[in-house]
Amino acid sequence: QKRNHHSVGIIGAPFCKGQRRDGVEKGPDLIRSAGLVEKLKGQGCSVRDYGNLKFENVPDDEPIGKVLRPRSVGRANEQLADAVRAIKKDGHTCVMLGGDHSLAIGSILGHAASRKELCVVWVDAHADINTPLTTLTGNIHGQPVSYLIRELHPKIPVMQGFSWIKPCISARDIIYIGLRDVDPEEHYILKYLGVKFFSMTEVDRLGIAKVMEETCDHIFSKVKRPIHLSYDIDALDPSVSPATGTPVVGGLSYREGIYITEQICQTGMLSALDLVEVNPKLGRTEAEISSTATAAVDVILGCFGRFREGSHAPDYRMPTP
Amino acid sequence: QKRNHHSVGIIGAPFCKGQRRDGVEKGPDLIRSAGLVEKLKGQGCSVRDYGNLKFENVPDDEPIGKVLRPRSVGRANEQLADAVRAIKKDGHTCVMLGGDHSLAIGSILGHAASRKELCVVWVDAHADINTPLTTLTGNIHGQPVSYLIRELHPKIPVMQGFSWIKPCISARDIIYIGLRDVDPEEHYILKYLGVKFFSMTEVDRLGIAKVMEETCDHIFSKVKRPIHLSYDIDALDPSVSPATGTPVVGGLSYREGIYITEQICQTGMLSALDLVEVNPKLGRTEAEISSTATAAVDVILGCFGRFREGSHAPDYRMPTP
Amino acid sequence: QKRNHHSVGIIGAPFCKGQRRDGVEKGPDLIRSAGLVEKLKGQGCSVRDYGNLKFENVPDDEPIGKVLRPRSVGRANEQLADAVRAIKKDGHTCVMLGGDHSLAIGSILGHAASRKELCVVWVDAHADINTPLTTLTGNIHGQPVSYLIRELHPKIPVMQGFSWIKPCISARDIIYIGLRDVDPEEHYILKYLGVKFFSMTEVDRLGIAKVMEETCDHIFSKVKRPIHLSYDIDALDPSVSPATGTPVVGGLSYREGIYITEQICQTGMLSALDLVEVNPKLGRTEAEISSTATAAVDVILGCFGRFREGSHAPDYRMPTP
Ligand SMILES: [Mn+2]
Ligand SMILES: [Mn+2]
Ligand SMILES: [Mn+2]
Ligand SMILES: [Mn+2]
Ligand SMILES: [Mn+2]
Ligand SMILES: [Mn+2]
Repeated sequence: QKRNHHSVGIIGAPFCKGQRRDGVEKGPDLIRSAGLVEKLKGQGCSVRDYGNLKFENVPDDEPIGKVLRPRSVGRANEQLADAVRAIKKDGHTCVMLGGDHSLAIGSILGHAASRKELCVVWVDAHADINTPLTTLTGNIHGQPVSYLIRELHPKIPVMQGFSWIKPCISARDIIYIGLRDVDPEEHYILKYLGVKFFSMTEVDRLGIAKVMEETCDHIFSKVKRPIHLSYDIDALDPSVSPATGTPVVGGLSYREGIYITEQICQTGMLSALDLVEVNPKLGRTEAEISSTATAAVDVILGCFGRFREGSHAPDYRMPTP
Repeated sequence: QKRNHHSVGIIGAPFCKGQRRDGVEKGPDLIRSAGLVEKLKGQGCSVRDYGNLKFENVPDDEPIGKVLRPRSVGRANEQLADAVRAIKKDGHTCVMLGGDHSLAIGSILGHAASRKELCVVWVDAHADINTPLTTLTGNIHGQPVSYLIRELHPKIPVMQGFSWIKPCISARDIIYIGLRDVDPEEHYILKYLGVKFFSMTEVDRLGIAKVMEETCDHIFSKVKRPIHLSYDIDALDPSVSPATGTPVVGGLSYREGIYITEQICQTGMLSALDLVEVNPKLGRTEAEISSTATAAVDVILGCFGRFREGSHAPDYRMPTP
Repeated sequence: QKRNHHSVGIIGAPFCKGQRRDGVEKGPDLIRSAGLVEKLKGQGCSVRDYGNLKFENVPDDEPIGKVLRPRSVGRANEQLADAVRAIKKDGHTCVMLGGDHSLAIGSILGHAASRKELCVVWVDAHADINTPLTTLTGNIHGQPVSYLIRELHPKIPVMQGFSWIKPCISARDIIYIGLRDVDPEEHYILKYLGVKFFSMTEVDRLGIAKVMEETCDHIFSKVKRPIHLSYDIDALDPSVSPATGTPVVGGLSYREGIYITEQICQTGMLSALDLVEVNPKLGRTEAEISSTATAAVDVILGCFGRFREGSHAPDYRMPTP
């Protein structure tokens, strides 16, 4: 176990137009106010907070087919991609605080602009892999993966605001953990493309330790490469993180959620992290909001060297009477 | 993994006289109102709802020894057995919505009338295997198994209302999952008969995946045969399904409870299901009632082909721009 | 599986000066009022309740360095050590009801006075191994282990009230389960001394069954010897036992907490038990208080022969009609 020095660059993306529920744009500030930056520094990270992106209003953003607010989502992600690329250029591990999960489009594309061979670990109750033509809700936070996978490109119609987007990963470069609410169309896509996933059934069958072993085997099957961890807080059980837009019963325990981050951290290959779908307005009590915020912060801390057994500086010496 | 077509016949048994607590007779309607039929249809099942049985009042139903309301329980189960036999004759997998667990007598006997070689998987915090002579409470919902096992027949006294009952399984044909509140007399019986069980200690030791593997090995040791799954909602932890008459701490998680059903479904041999002991009146809040109802519905859905990874129709084709 | 006869001696230690939060001195009476003695007797134990210790007020108990109320803590533990030694002399397995975890000093020293070769299983979210020189808070309930380990003796300054204390175990004689909030200084000590521990990361990785297997392998590596189980209720998750002074998210489940006790019981070597840090004043609702008390009682019952599968007397005979 290494106590690495981590250099973390944080970018807030207060964006909610990839879905319908008000409040997810407050996620970045809630997570910060739960002490993210101080706690990261406290565990030995150097941290630069790049603040929050400012997203322009895109007028007349009518649906295209079923897809809602495509120009707003396209434009916001373009801004985010630029920001992430800049943070990677500055040499940091990038932490993107959402905002809804449509932001993974920009985050992953910006990341891929500087790290060609990246792979994606997608921790989520949902597959978020609907295409603009299969979506039932029209919400783009249920579609980001479809824009990123090369093999799906022929299935994606041209859309205003999305022309800058070129898929950057193959189906074999992404792996899912935590699935338990997958549309039939999404299930078809996962199977058709042979995407590797661990639904909650596999988590129950194998246990989270084996899941993480197999995850690392899969993503590093040829060579170690940079990891983009896209962590939807709704992967965790609603009893842990209730303040989110599309909670689904039967999720990862807090401990499983943290174990994932500890193992990702141990690979030494984490290069960018999304923490999305924290929605303070959907907490019914203060306790629900703070439990969700704590979980979000602990997920991030786990990615950057917090171990539950503790850690100490290599040069520490014990005091003697 | 197969997306089978399931033909489901539902019978409601609004019966509460196998125990003392008012409200369990509202179980069938609560489970239905949580969307059972529509959800089963939504996942591709054909469903026939046979409605609720109407149970006559049996006057002067004095205790026999310690056993409470034996004539009412005997008569209700006779009606239920007829209904289940008819549903099996119609070619359905039978779903009996309780009501209290004394109803397993009629459900299993009715099932056995058409499926000789059935085996029973009993998911419960309790063994429900007291005899009329060992019961401490007198409640028949703590005794149903004792009437069904051939080896126990010499231990069962003759009782009014029970003369139609002939044991239909051997001790090796039943297996328990979830035990954690077993009377000393029941423990003696389990050991004396060599009944196979997985108490919560074994679930903790082996994990639910291994428990289900061993369960299938046990029940199919010679040949695959029809399964009667008798699922007491109190097998689940009270944090998941609080609205029940005899909750016991330390139960199965929602995920474990669902994993059991996924594995039973995968055998392709499920022939009848009891879902019992949902008692809306014992939910202290709306949230407790709806959590219990959701769990009950999800248990049933899991038995009929809902997989957490999702599923899709074999003839599905993706839309292309 | 044996249904041993256990002879249990209970001593209450209503002491709170090893930490800052009022109310933990009410722990012994809360645990008793949850039915401890009757339940132990109900499962076949013989029980002698030695009542509560009376602790004198030590005036002018000024801090020594950072250490708070050292004379009070030293004196209370001296009394407790005498009481535990007497209970062991009477031939009982000793159950010490805390009070805060500083009481482990007296409990283990009193125990060691009559059982030379004892080993310690420390179940806790915390390592409680700060020295008077490394402590950040000054609370002695975060330091007891440091006074007990021979290898740390050179690091412990002389303190008023502590002169009677001689370390009684080696670093290899203690094992931790449940760690998740360990100070850097403590982590250094654990690693420096090579103390064996299972943090929550290891519990997640190995599962509680393997953890208990390895625990027994470790403590019995040479020979079976008496076990001192020091059980801090905060080892359990705050959702199970919220009424405690330093709760930490991500703890042991109720089931894991009980599994530990079942396995310790099965060794047949349990010689003394501490159950500490139950603080009724910190329960925000009656439900939180009673859930904590129930967990505490069930931990103790599990140590003395309660099995979740049930048990029966060897001479039991079934009634026949
Ligand atoms: Mn998502
Ligand atoms: Mn999601
Ligand atoms: Mn039950
Ligand atoms: Mn039952
Ligand atoms: Mn402690
Ligand atoms: Mn503690």
